[in-house]
Amino acid sequence: MTTEERNEQGTVADDGLLRGRFTGGVHPALDRINRSFEVDQRLWREDIEGSRAHARMLGAVGVLETAAVERILAGLADVAAEFAAGTFVDLPEDEDIHMAVERRLTELVGEDGKRLHTGRSRNDQVATDLRLYLRGCARRLAAGVRVVQARLVALAERDGHLVMPFYTHLQRAQPVALGHVLLGYIEMLERDRADLHTDGDECPLGAGAGTGTTFPIDRRMTASALGFARPTRNSLESVSSRRDAARLVSAMACTATTLSRLGADLVLWCSREFGFARLGDAVSTGSSIMPQKRNPDGAELLRAKATVVTGALMRLFEMQRALPIGYSKDLQEDKPAVFEAEDALAQMLEVADAMLGDIDFDGERMRAAVSDPSGYMLATEAADWLVRRGVSFREAHEAVGGLVSAAEERGVALEDLPLDVFVSLHPAFDATVFEALSIDAALDTRTSIGGTSRTNVDSELRRWREVLDSL
Amino acid sequence: MTTEERNEQGTVADDGLLRGRFTGGVHPALDRINRSFEVDQRLWREDIEGSRAHARMLGAVGVLETAAVERILAGLADVAAEFAAGTFVDLPEDEDIHMAVERRLTELVGEDGKRLHTGRSRNDQVATDLRLYLRGCARRLAAGVRVVQARLVALAERDGHLVMPFYTHLQRAQPVALGHVLLGYIEMLERDRADLHTDGDECPLGAGAGTGTTFPIDRRMTASALGFARPTRNSLESVSSRRDAARLVSAMACTATTLSRLGADLVLWCSREFGFARLGDAVSTGSSIMPQKRNPDGAELLRAKATVVTGALMRLFEMQRALPIGYSKDLQEDKPAVFEAEDALAQMLEVADAMLGDIDFDGERMRAAVSDPSGYMLATEAADWLVRRGVSFREAHEAVGGLVSAAEERGVALEDLPLDVFVSLHPAFDATVFEALSIDAALDTRTSIGGTSRTNVDSELRRWREVLDSL
Amino acid sequence: MTTEERNEQGTVADDGLLRGRFTGGVHPALDRINRSFEVDQRLWREDIEGSRAHARMLGAVGVLETAAVERILAGLADVAAEFAAGTFVDLPEDEDIHMAVERRLTELVGEDGKRLHTGRSRNDQVATDLRLYLRGCARRLAAGVRVVQARLVALAERDGHLVMPFYTHLQRAQPVALGHVLLGYIEMLERDRADLHTDGDECPLGAGAGTGTTFPIDRRMTASALGFARPTRNSLESVSSRRDAARLVSAMACTATTLSRLGADLVLWCSREFGFARLGDAVSTGSSIMPQKRNPDGAELLRAKATVVTGALMRLFEMQRALPIGYSKDLQEDKPAVFEAEDALAQMLEVADAMLGDIDFDGERMRAAVSDPSGYMLATEAADWLVRRGVSFREAHEAVGGLVSAAEERGVALEDLPLDVFVSLHPAFDATVFEALSIDAALDTRTSIGGTSRTNVDSELRRWREVLDSL
Amino acid sequence: MTTEERNEQGTVADDGLLRGRFTGGVHPALDRINRSFEVDQRLWREDIEGSRAHARMLGAVGVLETAAVERILAGLADVAAEFAAGTFVDLPEDEDIHMAVERRLTELVGEDGKRLHTGRSRNDQVATDLRLYLRGCARRLAAGVRVVQARLVALAERDGHLVMPFYTHLQRAQPVALGHVLLGYIEMLERDRADLHTDGDECPLGAGAGTGTTFPIDRRMTASALGFARPTRNSLESVSSRRDAARLVSAMACTATTLSRLGADLVLWCSREFGFARLGDAVSTGSSIMPQKRNPDGAELLRAKATVVTGALMRLFEMQRALPIGYSKDLQEDKPAVFEAEDALAQMLEVADAMLGDIDFDGERMRAAVSDPSGYMLATEAADWLVRRGVSFREAHEAVGGLVSAAEERGVALEDLPLDVFVSLHPAFDATVFEALSIDAALDTRTSIGGTSRTNVDSELRRWREVLDSL
Repeated sequence: MTTEERNEQGTVADDGLLRGRFTGGVHPALDRINRSFEVDQRLWREDIEGSRAHARMLGAVGVLETAAVERILAGLADVAAEFAAGTFVDLPEDEDIHMAVERRLTELVGEDGKRLHTGRSRNDQVATDLRLYLRGCARRLAAGVRVVQARLVALAERDGHLVMPFYTHLQRAQPVALGHVLLGYIEMLERDRADLHTDGDECPLGAGAGTGTTFPIDRRMTASALGFARPTRNSLESVSSRRDAARLVSAMACTATTLSRLGADLVLWCSREFGFARLGDAVSTGSSIMPQKRNPDGAELLRAKATVVTGALMRLFEMQRALPIGYSKDLQEDKPAVFEAEDALAQMLEVADAMLGDIDFDGERMRAAVSDPSGYMLATEAADWLVRRGVSFREAHEAVGGLVSAAEERGVALEDLPLDVFVSLHPAFDATVFEALSIDAALDTRTSIGGTSRTNVDSELRRWREVLDSL
Repeated sequence: MTTEERNEQGTVADDGLLRGRFTGGVHPALDRINRSFEVDQRLWREDIEGSRAHARMLGAVGVLETAAVERILAGLADVAAEFAAGTFVDLPEDEDIHMAVERRLTELVGEDGKRLHTGRSRNDQVATDLRLYLRGCARRLAAGVRVVQARLVALAERDGHLVMPFYTHLQRAQPVALGHVLLGYIEMLERDRADLHTDGDECPLGAGAGTGTTFPIDRRMTASALGFARPTRNSLESVSSRRDAARLVSAMACTATTLSRLGADLVLWCSREFGFARLGDAVSTGSSIMPQKRNPDGAELLRAKATVVTGALMRLFEMQRALPIGYSKDLQEDKPAVFEAEDALAQMLEVADAMLGDIDFDGERMRAAVSDPSGYMLATEAADWLVRRGVSFREAHEAVGGLVSAAEERGVALEDLPLDVFVSLHPAFDATVFEALSIDAALDTRTSIGGTSRTNVDSELRRWREVLDSL
Repeated sequence: MTTEERNEQGTVADDGLLRGRFTGGVHPALDRINRSFEVDQRLWREDIEGSRAHARMLGAVGVLETAAVERILAGLADVAAEFAAGTFVDLPEDEDIHMAVERRLTELVGEDGKRLHTGRSRNDQVATDLRLYLRGCARRLAAGVRVVQARLVALAERDGHLVMPFYTHLQRAQPVALGHVLLGYIEMLERDRADLHTDGDECPLGAGAGTGTTFPIDRRMTASALGFARPTRNSLESVSSRRDAARLVSAMACTATTLSRLGADLVLWCSREFGFARLGDAVSTGSSIMPQKRNPDGAELLRAKATVVTGALMRLFEMQRALPIGYSKDLQEDKPAVFEAEDALAQMLEVADAMLGDIDFDGERMRAAVSDPSGYMLATEAADWLVRRGVSFREAHEAVGGLVSAAEERGVALEDLPLDVFVSLHPAFDATVFEALSIDAALDTRTSIGGTSRTNVDSELRRWREVLDSL
Repeated sequence: MTTEERNEQGTVADDGLLRGRFTGGVHPALDRINRSFEVDQRLWREDIEGSRAHARMLGAVGVLETAAVERILAGLADVAAEFAAGTFVDLPEDEDIHMAVERRLTELVGEDGKRLHTGRSRNDQVATDLRLYLRGCARRLAAGVRVVQARLVALAERDGHLVMPFYTHLQRAQPVALGHVLLGYIEMLERDRADLHTDGDECPLGAGAGTGTTFPIDRRMTASALGFARPTRNSLESVSSRRDAARLVSAMACTATTLSRLGADLVLWCSREFGFARLGDAVSTGSSIMPQKRNPDGAELLRAKATVVTGALMRLFEMQRALPIGYSKDLQEDKPAVFEAEDALAQMLEVADAMLGDIDFDGERMRAAVSDPSGYMLATEAADWLVRRGVSFREAHEAVGGLVSAAEERGVALEDLPLDVFVSLHPAFDATVFEALSIDAALDTRTSIGGTSRTNVDSELRRWREVLDSL
């Protein structure tokens, strides 16, 4: 390309920090795809925190004089204040957050700013920033999960004794307490919450470009200052891998999956066909042409937004796949994926909390769904009754299959069949079977650990209340 | 939730168009996850184009008077001008681009604005907007591919006769002309370009919420006005499916995959180890600590950004999977995915063009890689020579395997082995075999269709020059 | 590794066709991951078809004598017969289907078998095999889609006039004919079917390893013999790309997505809560402990199996991403992905057909869901009525929002509100509004193209019957 | 469907355990998609282990008599023996491994076999089987990782002092010890190995279909017998979630990603252009037409097979997304995904070990790549030298950029430039700079934690030797 051609295309003027050896500016197309400041400025807190620790350490080991360190720290505080106040002005040559902070620092404190990058590289710097960010991100999301769990506990404390069908294959299966269903979600979220942390207790700062540095840096000092247990053990691994990001986003995908399932249940429960629940006005939306509509958009988006998180996870794995060890620019694509996943999940947690905080259950419709004679939801009880009389489970299962057919033919519930039909299908039946054929019996005799009895529900809710209060 | 609690949480004040039946505003968490204006305002052109066609049609069939249509069209022109000028001001209740345009139109033209939404719904409106958008998006991206193809043709016209290794398994395999390699990419991109179109020649407008409308609308008229061949045949299908988006993004993923491969080749070619090519300063980047570095960031991002496109594709499929027919809010997640894929691919096309326009090849290093005695790149020629003497291919293959071992042992090229070694490995060998053992012969005897001979390269380049000029 | 160590690990004895230059066998771990015969033997028909065309062509251009060609063709016929009969015995050194066929051919016909591989490579051979396979695969799947479409037409002909709710957000929205819903699926499947084809009208055979060949082969002849329009134009592109596979699997993903949605609807419709449909015994499953269960496993698997297809698509794209041009072994992973996607989709089509062929609809429950007073499904009709009286749509929408609130408060349907409530909410209302507030009117006045009126349904079904019969 | 039609379609004869209430057999299409025995028979050990614990517990709580328990345990031992010997014969009605084991058990021990399914369901049974399987799977894979780590340690002990370029952006950056690179992989694999475990310390057995059971089962007893810390706390959560599978496969994806990177490095190192390494014959493959080829197929498949694992991960998340709580048949798709991922990763670990055990490094070529004058790999050293003289890093960076340009112009290495050029670019330079400009100095002065100095490499290898030996 001739200079004239390049000028025509209008390369970005660039008297930046990195291009001293090159003639001319950067091609605008490269600049557009390469410049990450718009995305990674979100790391400003972590970047400045890392620079602070680095500067102090350089002072401690004698690479910088104490006065220089002080000037740098003061300058960094000013840069941080600008970001916090939203007054930071980025320049075209601020390729990323690291260059932007250093450039501004140098404007503010002069020559000392140019000395900060001693004994480090953007490669270890961004790895450190990211790890710090992931730590905070995990903490924020875990707190959001806790809020939803607490909301579920409160809801279950209020309405947990209501009875509804438990479904398998979306077919009514057995009676269950609403509180037991909500506790199911609390348990799932607990697993999710436990995973929302980073394994990264090792600090990459000081790995340099990837081979370490010739300066006598004290990596234990920076690691400790930034809250890590110790420095990473291998400089190459430190700059090459984004596994921490993939692991955390994989944990986010678990949480998002749980919320997507809650969303699916809310959509069903709020349908006229189920009619179990009604979302409040503030968490419902209307239709542009159907004045009667009350749409559970939030619940639908719980289902759909989970794909944003799994999509981000896919990108994080694929972006790293088959990259040779060492830093490659491909790794820059980590941050948009992490941020997208975090934003989607944070929105999901908020809206789940909002919906669960403004929902009414219709206990009558729920119980009616259980007692609907055509549902035969007590069939398991009849089979279990036989088994308790010494009949083998398979024989009991088959006999009750016959009972259901008989009841279906007559259009009645099992418990409305006359005893002689019972006996004709299995001679062990007697009149006490009707005692087992009650919703409340079905529910409250399930008292083994994890069963749906209302005493279980109550004791689990007490336990959760304590657990969550103690967090 | 009590009113006090809700107020504490600060619901969004909303005197919008859709919530007449609800009391109070929308919960901020729902608003955040639900409101799509920030994303879908990108559809303003298409939304207004659709509204224009709809208004004219309502006039033609007598639902609106001519004067009202005129006022609406004038108002829409004003709204469009505001968007074009960047002066459009959205309000909190502008849930999406459709409501924003209608709200502003009503502010500008009064009562008539409230009549525009007759005989349509946001469901058919957004389906129409999206289809119009995809049409333009496909056109823009296909044009971008053509630019890269033309750049490759120009490069091949300049340097196409240079010889380099063809690789399989990243092992040197046979000599090939650089022009032939570049033509390989041109062909791949041609398949990609041919796929960058939408199948959507049917217009969804008039499908209403999903069952049609009771107004006597003329769907052929709006379809034709918007450049479609005909209206869709089923109103439910019209509003339920986002397959067009998935299909186009799948085509984008093909293009992105091709570019990712070009990126991988550029990274290799620009490495010191290959040393085949050097990117110009304007399309290279430097290092924050290593002053000697000349990094091909653009090429690396061609590899990495392809994951953005495949990630978006995954989201589009998964978002639709297992949704019952009809409109569900989940479908709103289509637009971020499409836009993200488009932006990534557009950047990739631009940077590919920029790099290919500022690259120098090192013909000497390329030829040296072919003639490196330890590469044995002419082994196939020796085998083929035997086959032409009537030896079976498998026998020839085995004999030449022996030749390679012999040459390896002596540390020489095949053509530097004495004839008696040849003969000892197969009696059919005679001195004329050395004629076949030349790079130029290997290259230029591959004249069957698609072969790498330089005459083939030249004629293909002439053909492509014509094809691309005619677009 | 010493020889002893290697022996300990027990390398596979290998006197195969490719290892002449190497000493010792292949490491069993490499053999396990590398050998693809178990998977790609599924290509035996295509591989032999390609070899036939290649042999005939080699005869026509004089590379092989006629008698040799005849012997090869006879031998290939025998190999094909062995595969067809299930009597083909593969050996450990049969690395893939290509080597297996050639090895067995040589056993059967002797020396001539070793001559078949003249002027071709496994690289162009597998590309040709795959393209032939994809063509057949697309045809088979498209035929399967047609079967499901015909089944839907038959079902709609039988029950298409039944009335049911149309849903948006899984909320009842407007009345719709069951036939219209089924036609929605027929339309979606038509788009899917139209995409189930390969673009590959170019034949890769003759591209050799990737640079063509020095033999005077006639690529037009083989292309034509194998049913392609012409040979590929660039040998490198021919062996490097698996885009055809990705494109076809992307089309499969569209079909799978449509079927997953049908599955979701069937699961809902068969739930006791909806109660619209009942699957026959032969397409229902039972429970291991609940004797009353009738589970729609097939419909659930329509939802779940779609992830197999999208997963395969992801693999096809990612496997190719960032591969340099030329053949890399990575491409071998194409076939498991294609076969897995095909098998999943074929099973899905079969089970969808089976379920739709053994389903009963409950017209009474469906109509009851529409006429349920609490559903307000005629609200749009009231709004449209006002608009036809000259009221603006937004004003009408708001007034009817008020009507719904009034009806909700009294617990009645819209049409059961007294006229004065109507008038109090909008003065334009008069008694004729009650004529519009009927299910049948709502349905049958939607007569514009694509609307749900039963006359539309009938004419569309007639059209589809003709279209499908003509295929 | 009429009986005749069904007969025509040939339903599967089924006198199985679950269909008592249904008339006729199961449709073959449903059977094909539904029957999972072919896949889940892989769980036979876990299924029988679970049944043993369940039977013993039923005995302990008095639901079964001791003698019956004994007969069941003996029968289960016989069934296990059949599976172990490969003599188990499955029948068409063996829908899955659970039904197959129970059916065979009943054949062997009669009536008692029918009593085993008391107080459990397939829902809790499969959740338990899967969790047990995942535990073993994680253990096997972690052991495989350890083997690869040990192999890397051995390799580094042998060749770890060789010097090679460290790359960023695939551009030569700084000298590094091969041992440091291998240690980088050891570290990455250590993170991966640490993640290869299951969190599942809770036993789902006893959750029944999802609400618990009315029998007085002792879940602590079965949990403990199966090696779990405790029973799950909520029966619904127990049967609804496959998060454990997703989490483990996510960890597998991390390992697979690391191995894919190792594969990418091996492909590069074994290329003629890099020429750093040569794989032994037993782990190399040949070409069907190019006798000279030595292809690193195993390394390429490390890259490609990783997509199988990430594809499986995607399926596991998507299959669960938006499923309502409770058991849905969709969850059956968990096992093929887990098994596919495990098989791919196990093959990858094996082949990585095989390749690393049969590789030679070319220390001369590696060192030559570092000392290549055109690489300027000591530029950082020059900059650091200036910084140690008090020059700010940015000023030093710029000065050395000038040095590189000057050296490039003259075509010499930095250290071959005369001192006056140094001084002209920065006055602080003096002759002692040449001491810093040595490969060995660059390497061995990087002694801070994680740096590439050979003393660091040695001590890290000693540490790893101990760590791995202690496992």
